[in-house]
Amino acid sequence: MALPELHSLEDILGIIAELPDADTAAISAADAREPQLTKPAGSLGKLEEISQWLCGWQGTHPPRLDRMAVHIFAGNHGITAQGVSAFPSEVTIQMVGNFEAGGAAINQLCKVHGANLKVFPIELDTPTADFSLRPAMEPAELVTAFRAGWDTVSADLDLLCIGEMGIGNTSAAAAIAHAIYHGSAAEWTGPGTGVSGQELDHKAAVIAMAVEDHRAGMNTGIDILRHVGGRELAAMAGAITAARLLRVPVVLDGYVATAAAACLAMCNPKALDHCWAGHVSREPGHRKLLERLGMIPLLDLDMRLGEGSGAAVAIGIIRSAVACHNGMSTFAEAGVTDKD
Amino acid sequence: MALPELHSLEDILGIIAELPDADTAAISAADAREPQLTKPAGSLGKLEEISQWLCGWQGTHPPRLDRMAVHIFAGNHGITAQGVSAFPSEVTIQMVGNFEAGGAAINQLCKVHGANLKVFPIELDTPTADFSLRPAMEPAELVTAFRAGWDTVSADLDLLCIGEMGIGNTSAAAAIAHAIYHGSAAEWTGPGTGVSGQELDHKAAVIAMAVEDHRAGMNTGIDILRHVGGRELAAMAGAITAARLLRVPVVLDGYVATAAAACLAMCNPKALDHCWAGHVSREPGHRKLLERLGMIPLLDLDMRLGEGSGAAVAIGIIRSAVACHNGMSTFAEAGVTDKD
Repeated sequence: MALPELHSLEDILGIIAELPDADTAAISAADAREPQLTKPAGSLGKLEEISQWLCGWQGTHPPRLDRMAVHIFAGNHGITAQGVSAFPSEVTIQMVGNFEAGGAAINQLCKVHGANLKVFPIELDTPTADFSLRPAMEPAELVTAFRAGWDTVSADLDLLCIGEMGIGNTSAAAAIAHAIYHGSAAEWTGPGTGVSGQELDHKAAVIAMAVEDHRAGMNTGIDILRHVGGRELAAMAGAITAARLLRVPVVLDGYVATAAAACLAMCNPKALDHCWAGHVSREPGHRKLLERLGMIPLLDLDMRLGEGSGAAVAIGIIRSAVACHNGMSTFAEAGVTDKD
Repeated sequence: MALPELHSLEDILGIIAELPDADTAAISAADAREPQLTKPAGSLGKLEEISQWLCGWQGTHPPRLDRMAVHIFAGNHGITAQGVSAFPSEVTIQMVGNFEAGGAAINQLCKVHGANLKVFPIELDTPTADFSLRPAMEPAELVTAFRAGWDTVSADLDLLCIGEMGIGNTSAAAAIAHAIYHGSAAEWTGPGTGVSGQELDHKAAVIAMAVEDHRAGMNTGIDILRHVGGRELAAMAGAITAARLLRVPVVLDGYVATAAAACLAMCNPKALDHCWAGHVSREPGHRKLLERLGMIPLLDLDMRLGEGSGAAVAIGIIRSAVACHNGMSTFAEAGVTDKD
């Protein structure tokens, strides 16, 4: 299918309001095969759920994993002027160079797990506005950034992992979570690349004040994404939404990717049904955010790197699931006695 | 190195009492490289710990994963006469046939993760004695079974995953855990391949009575393995111990493998320092057993199949760790600015 054109915030909200459901026939086909396989019923646990989930969102049985991709979206953030990050903004473009040269963690992980890595730097020379002073993006900028992610997805993918790079973007994630789920800014604010002590308190205070200031303008998830998000967050939201329309299951990476996704869930509680959380990161807000979204992560490895790394490690689990579902013998084929 | 010969329970206890330590020079080399890699310090979490652990027990830096194996040990259990299992004993040999034909879950998982699968059926036609009536094995039988695992390990392996197949063996695991850690038999007893309700209560009652009856004869972990264990459990204990001597890091699978390992830890609290728990299974005693052993599992996916499946899925994480540690660029190589 061709994706619809998006020209305005209203176009985006309209798309998110009416998303396709899972394919129940493909789910039934998976459910019919599973109990025939040579193992006690249910004994592969989450692996069985993953196969069923892939079938439902790919709209096909057996599930396929021939073409897997990791898309990293990179952006720069005006909020870094407030001293919220341990690394300088120039690191965003340096790390994009590192991705392109093959030297980052995500390059190694994509090689191990057979995923195709693509990196999308989004206007790195034009950071978003400092959201402690004004909205991070104008409406047109939000639409452009959302489309920058939307346009990267194609229907020939079997799985898409969503990740990011952007010095300052855990501040955006914390602001989004605080804006959507309230509580205190401090409980959503973490070290990111490594702030602590007074710097961390300062980061939380900046976020608290900014969310308070923008409150009146943030009525929808897309408003929140525009006011306190960032270009790479909007792009991730766009890619997640396009994947739903194109029948591509999505694996979310860490706190920032999940915060972008949460903006979609605020618009439509079913908007993330085609997404699985690859991992829960050590960034403390991530676990709370996943709980609010009702998502159970595949991995819990104390990772907090971003760049799609947690989602990429989770590919190993997803490949395990598909290999078992598609490759195992049935009780009849193997001549194994089923349960008494 | 050549492994020493084992002829008696005393030989086994002597080996377990004096095991080699990790290689501190290899650990230091890993620790020196890690902070130079292009990521915030510690941001790969457990992946960094895994690389360090592999170096320490392989005795080399960089860590290697060229030759990975999954060894499955299969045994039959006299205790099945007490009606403790949902599947009949004939399934053990049928599943060995399924492993050999390539149709089981573990075959698919080994293919995905690049591990070499070997299956070792141990006297399947001669089940151990029914431990509700007498010790499962005579001393000579225990030594033979321990050596059956011991002899399968070679120094050219970089990683060894330990798994099992044996109808009735979650009863052996529960009896071992109850014998070592006390509490009630019921809290260590789970559904195994699928018993529930009154059958599950009966399983717990059989285990409670058997452990009570054997208590006077069970002074060491090896006594426990002999009285209420089984041949495949003794073989796993043998393989784990041989791996330590041959500098092969080990990944444990589920409840039964961990129970076999716990017998070693009872003999020497350092006996499992070269082992990582691949996952925590849904079998309820496994989580408690890992807690008692101070082991943090890599995965928690509600799996409860055995046959090395949880350990094999964990290989994906271990490969991720090694790929990052060995393949990433340093800040200097990539021209990325380190933390302020």
